[in-house]
Amino acid sequence: MPRRAHLLVLAAALVPLAAADRSEVEGYRAAAARIAGAALVDGRSREILQHLSDRIGPRLSGSPGAEAAVRWTRERLIRDGLDARLEAVTVPRWVRGEESAEILSPAPQRLAVTALGSSEPTPDGGLEAEVVSVGSFDELKALGKARVRGRIVLYHRVLVPGDAQQDYGALGPLRTRGAVEAARLGAVASLVRSLGTLSARLPHTGNMRYEDGVPRIPAAALAAEDADLVQRLLDSGEAVRVRLRLGCRTLPDVESANVVAELRGRERPDEIVLIAAHLDSWDLGTGAIDDGAGVAAVMDTLRILKSLGLTPRRTVRGVLYMNEENGLRGGRAYLEAHRDALGRHVAAIESDSGGTRPVAFTALTGEGGMDVLEGIVSLLAAVAPLAVEPGGHGGADISPLRAGGVPLLGLRQDTTHYLDWHHTAADTLDKVDPGDLARNTAALAVMAYALAEMPGTLPRPAPEESAAPRPAR
Amino acid sequence: MPRRAHLLVLAAALVPLAAADRSEVEGYRAAAARIAGAALVDGRSREILQHLSDRIGPRLSGSPGAEAAVRWTRERLIRDGLDARLEAVTVPRWVRGEESAEILSPAPQRLAVTALGSSEPTPDGGLEAEVVSVGSFDELKALGKARVRGRIVLYHRVLVPGDAQQDYGALGPLRTRGAVEAARLGAVASLVRSLGTLSARLPHTGNMRYEDGVPRIPAAALAAEDADLVQRLLDSGEAVRVRLRLGCRTLPDVESANVVAELRGRERPDEIVLIAAHLDSWDLGTGAIDDGAGVAAVMDTLRILKSLGLTPRRTVRGVLYMNEENGLRGGRAYLEAHRDALGRHVAAIESDSGGTRPVAFTALTGEGGMDVLEGIVSLLAAVAPLAVEPGGHGGADISPLRAGGVPLLGLRQDTTHYLDWHHTAADTLDKVDPGDLARNTAALAVMAYALAEMPGTLPRPAPEESAAPRPAR
Repeated sequence: MPRRAHLLVLAAALVPLAAADRSEVEGYRAAAARIAGAALVDGRSREILQHLSDRIGPRLSGSPGAEAAVRWTRERLIRDGLDARLEAVTVPRWVRGEESAEILSPAPQRLAVTALGSSEPTPDGGLEAEVVSVGSFDELKALGKARVRGRIVLYHRVLVPGDAQQDYGALGPLRTRGAVEAARLGAVASLVRSLGTLSARLPHTGNMRYEDGVPRIPAAALAAEDADLVQRLLDSGEAVRVRLRLGCRTLPDVESANVVAELRGRERPDEIVLIAAHLDSWDLGTGAIDDGAGVAAVMDTLRILKSLGLTPRRTVRGVLYMNEENGLRGGRAYLEAHRDALGRHVAAIESDSGGTRPVAFTALTGEGGMDVLEGIVSLLAAVAPLAVEPGGHGGADISPLRAGGVPLLGLRQDTTHYLDWHHTAADTLDKVDPGDLARNTAALAVMAYALAEMPGTLPRPAPEESAAPRPAR
Repeated sequence: MPRRAHLLVLAAALVPLAAADRSEVEGYRAAAARIAGAALVDGRSREILQHLSDRIGPRLSGSPGAEAAVRWTRERLIRDGLDARLEAVTVPRWVRGEESAEILSPAPQRLAVTALGSSEPTPDGGLEAEVVSVGSFDELKALGKARVRGRIVLYHRVLVPGDAQQDYGALGPLRTRGAVEAARLGAVASLVRSLGTLSARLPHTGNMRYEDGVPRIPAAALAAEDADLVQRLLDSGEAVRVRLRLGCRTLPDVESANVVAELRGRERPDEIVLIAAHLDSWDLGTGAIDDGAGVAAVMDTLRILKSLGLTPRRTVRGVLYMNEENGLRGGRAYLEAHRDALGRHVAAIESDSGGTRPVAFTALTGEGGMDVLEGIVSLLAAVAPLAVEPGGHGGADISPLRAGGVPLLGLRQDTTHYLDWHHTAADTLDKVDPGDLARNTAALAVMAYALAEMPGTLPRPAPEESAAPRPAR
């Protein structure tokens, strides 16, 4: 394009956009009614989730399941009339292999165990060592090298149900950094009591990280019951010897993709309301709650708006991110690919806390934004009473957009039982009620439509000093 | 002894005993207070259960765990001052081995599976076949040989939570007889949707039986989620092909034992109040609810009476039965060994429905017996409000005593969540609250004491035409 036109476009992008106004919301009631009706009565969210869960199954980054999910979601979106494309993401490829653990003494018993994502394997035939248990990194350091060297460290902390979401954030580092901290003191392996809220003999996996210069010791989670058993034996004052076998390994990186699908805006197609979920899952279950439900809501939102002919003023862009669970490379890749367009991202909304009933939008926005959002959710009062809560980062995948000042919203579900199943083999289709999933779709679709249609836009949040991506959950 | 004395003893045993009278119950209030106080405040039931669960672990008949349990409980009872002996029981020895299942087509996925007890293995390398699903034996027969031959039969029926105890009885034959009925029509294997009330990706095992003249095909349970997945794929009209590998096998029978411990009666030691639980468990979990809790209540009842010096008029005999789960050979062996003494068994009480709060005694007794029992449980109204429910067979182990006209009582626990964990890997110590277990002990001990102390005895139930043992649960 001629230089002059180019400058005009640039100028348009830099001019502060008009702020959205709550009084405009009432004008979208009729559209919201059509959208919600379509989601609840003529929706496809359950069908989409069922395909992902039953036909594709586990979708760990780089696995055949993840690649099948990329192909199928793109094809399905195109079939539904959307523009859909792939944006390349290079992802890690970690595979689990055989795994087992057992108490050798004082009372031989099998332990329910699963490797943490990114863990190194044990040596062939496993490793055997005494266990030392701690409840925190401070306790670990207080033990010191003399009592940790050559041992398996067990991080034994109980997630308090009812306060579990808060505890999950607080205890997460025991899983992600446990091996590094244990290895600094000479431990040979690291175990963590599963970060979960139900004792169903299910080990909960999740990602962990190594650090340059620190030995890369194997890391795994024990089921709650098994961690408690080891702890009781230790509490009796006896030495507890455990054998651990992890057959996991890291293969070369794999070329994968974010799936990006758009309903182009009718007036300002270069302005984007991004709606997001992540396509990858852990390998133990079929990723229905984490995050198949979010994927289904995003995909059905796009389909519903398209099929109703409700093409809003701005573009609604669905992004199905790859590699949220063990690397966040999809979130980073999107940031890199679209860095120049962040000023035209007027909002990003992620759904990544399951498929139970929607309860709130978290919102990181500027002065006055909350009022507009409260107006929008009021349209849905009889479908799903939704709070609007200030703060948050929307979701791990969209959190890098914070750096560009994008207003970040998180569609939050009732997480009372989320950590019962999260990252376990029991993250399966039955954990998502079709009606709840449809209500999530309605909430996401109405919010996306309104934000894309209103003449003004959400005020952008104040800059923050550190715009680090939010770690994967 | 001289012939004349022998005849006198026989005559005494045959004379109808005086019937117990509710008005006598009030006289036992002081003793009941001491017993309940000891159970709740100075009890050992939790310690006993913890040892069984943590130190001994799974106790399938014939396994090292079962034998360790026999040794340890006998020694512990002797240490607590009881007369304890072993009575021989020859038990089956079935071992699980490696097991797996997977959908091969139309959508490859791993399935959570576990062999049913007594099952034959699959051929080396497993077997592969299409699945045909039915909800009942009638549906199976309606399919006929043409559609069953060469297939894997899946019995897909959902236990309705809230009505689960009733359903468990109704659906139990799908597990125990499913392989036989399927094999009659030429099936190559039999699968059953786990008979459980929680979907936690846990397959529930349990016993099954073969029949002479019918091919012995492998039999296993799928986790609820996995059975439902197969069913959904079938519902779509596609052929579902599954590979099943079961490495289980049956080894030669093993000599094992019932553990029998007594507090001999001070006046009529030849008259017996029998209190019962079963020492064996399934191999997947540590048998805390099934039936470690019952074992702990029986053992602590004996210890409490002994330590308080409350030696009742009659003998209180604790029997820790072997092989309830896969054969009931302990129950039958006791019957054979004590057939001549059944007339002197004035009551038998079993605890075998978990370790949650006690809610009732079931009672199979004669006219007027319920009134006496209601009087006894009224002593415990503030410890555990207990109903007295007519009928039942007390429990699988003591059910053979029905043939001898023995009044049979079952101490029943709140089973709302019993079938969540029953026969799974998650039958572990944490599923039993120590306070609930102590209340069970109090209830069992007070009931046993009162029945052994009252001058009269419970009226014996009317004879029944078929006195078949109640099948193991």
